Amino acid sequence: MPLSNITDPGTLPPFAVSLGDPAGIGPEIVAKAWVMREARGLPAFFAVGDAASLRAVWLGPVEIVGSPEEAAQVFPDALPCLQVAEAGEIVPGSPSIDGARTAFQSLEVAVGLARTGSAAGIVTAPVGKEQLYGVGFTHPGQTEFVAERCGVSAQNAVMMLAGPSLKVVPITIHIALADVPSALTIDLIRARALTTVKGLQRNFGIARPRLAVAGLNPHAGENGALGREEIDVIRPAIESLRAEGIDIIGPLAADGMFHARARETYDAALCMYHDQALIPIKTLNFDDGVNITLGLPIVRTSPDHGTAFGIAGTDSANPGAMIAALRMAAEAARARIAYAA
Amino acid sequence: MPLSNITDPGTLPPFAVSLGDPAGIGPEIVAKAWVMREARGLPAFFAVGDAASLRAVWLGPVEIVGSPEEAAQVFPDALPCLQVAEAGEIVPGSPSIDGARTAFQSLEVAVGLARTGSAAGIVTAPVGKEQLYGVGFTHPGQTEFVAERCGVSAQNAVMMLAGPSLKVVPITIHIALADVPSALTIDLIRARALTTVKGLQRNFGIARPRLAVAGLNPHAGENGALGREEIDVIRPAIESLRAEGIDIIGPLAADGMFHARARETYDAALCMYHDQALIPIKTLNFDDGVNITLGLPIVRTSPDHGTAFGIAGTDSANPGAMIAALRMAAEAARARIAYAA
Repeated sequence: MPLSNITDPGTLPPFAVSLGDPAGIGPEIVAKAWVMREARGLPAFFAVGDAASLRAVWLGPVEIVGSPEEAAQVFPDALPCLQVAEAGEIVPGSPSIDGARTAFQSLEVAVGLARTGSAAGIVTAPVGKEQLYGVGFTHPGQTEFVAERCGVSAQNAVMMLAGPSLKVVPITIHIALADVPSALTIDLIRARALTTVKGLQRNFGIARPRLAVAGLNPHAGENGALGREEIDVIRPAIESLRAEGIDIIGPLAADGMFHARARETYDAALCMYHDQALIPIKTLNFDDGVNITLGLPIVRTSPDHGTAFGIAGTDSANPGAMIAALRMAAEAARARIAYAA
Repeated sequence: MPLSNITDPGTLPPFAVSLGDPAGIGPEIVAKAWVMREARGLPAFFAVGDAASLRAVWLGPVEIVGSPEEAAQVFPDALPCLQVAEAGEIVPGSPSIDGARTAFQSLEVAVGLARTGSAAGIVTAPVGKEQLYGVGFTHPGQTEFVAERCGVSAQNAVMMLAGPSLKVVPITIHIALADVPSALTIDLIRARALTTVKGLQRNFGIARPRLAVAGLNPHAGENGALGREEIDVIRPAIESLRAEGIDIIGPLAADGMFHARARETYDAALCMYHDQALIPIKTLNFDDGVNITLGLPIVRTSPDHGTAFGIAGTDSANPGAMIAALRMAAEAARARIAYAA
């Protein structure tokens, strides 16, 4: 039964958690999250990957399951794992080709289960991009892969970073800073803003989202004295969105929009480039920032950190962001049911 | 007696506080700071400007004085004001040409008093740049004017923003974002870093300052995949500084260097552009951020906010940053005496 046909949030199926690179910290933080399932009020979930990668770093109970239904039954007593492939010898901290293949397949299976409604959504542990490129992965990151598998263009799948203090959306993401000014267009800003509004409604239950848009230049350009992108691109985009009834302010001086009082005036900040969005959220919510993809037919969240190969296998990874990603996935799934009702 | 000849911090002369634009919030926050002089342990200070601008927004005691010595005697009982000019009719929130002239003269007199040692240093309230340009001011801001009057080139006068949680130095400041990549040079980064090291020693008493340098691009460029400035400019600058014995790390991914644990690893962060530096400090220390100019023969601090013409005269301005600027000026003056000893 696809999630869109579920009307009672109490009947949510479990979430599919792709373990990411088996040599990274993914297996460890998923196991630690399972241990804290009751203390932190987590939804039922199951791992998708190679159970051996969990056992390599954790002595707790792992049970291989054949379906999400079975996973839901097992979840109270053991960490359920849907075995998708064997990653070969797993050495935490040393990524391998077999491991990358397993990570790739885990992601694909998890997306498929969410698409059919067998899983309530997906939470993706971190992958090593270099490793994935070595096994034929051609997308800039997991977000773009998931978008494609869901039939959504990359432009309409929006990366939002969300923490307890702040939600931000970068308009441009993984490009050199020198390429940012020319990458900004009225159409791109409009597309990101519209997906963000819809995403806040569907995933967070915010009926009338308030957006704040950052300027590109210092002091938002000081009326053109410090750059014209605000005048030529950002302001026209904002004005056209406002004319359509969107509650949106800006362009604002970026340095003045992230302190506590300013944050109370909007639900999400649209930022022009990667660091403008990620500096404030990571400054405020480093250990519990969640990456949530807006614009998809499925719920998808991810902890906002990488594989951390350097500390994998040392039992020192902080599961805070994975726990936050699981909680946000559950909230988003429930909000979608309420929104559709 | 110039400050450099003072060896007992208990004998500091008072600080000169230029009132900035008389129609801005400068007079109000200076008066409010005086009211809190004992509660917040402020050093003795006197206003430099038009006493009428204080009386226009405040009913407390103002006494016109003829010298810093007299100001020191008056300070416990009234806010001393060294009258430099009459600003004409003062309407809070409505800047005027006469007001701009007064602001300009206040700054000039305050710098002169600090240069001769009659004042322990200067604290500058905010000016309206547009207004100043109308009366012949040709500098980008007060910092550059003070540097020139002190015989220091603008390149060697370094703007640091300092708060209780973080100290940051922007390498480039008031230029369009598109112009940042080409403005970054090995020489500029080296000059800012060396002045920062010396400034932390002299003004903050940090014997061996630890610097952290941000990358320009997302993830600090990912080894060139997202931009080459880290490889071509930033890293060579860091390596040459390290070779000279400077304790310096980077280029770091900017989004990962401002959370609490990361901040413990350095004394100041060198950032490549305005918002990269100002977003984190204003996110963390919006109400008590101080602008301190490093590289000058005199102590100069300033609250890290503008004239706020929009709220001038409404008694709603927060004096937090002015109080922090006065406290930091006193600490810097004492640290300089200890450093010189």
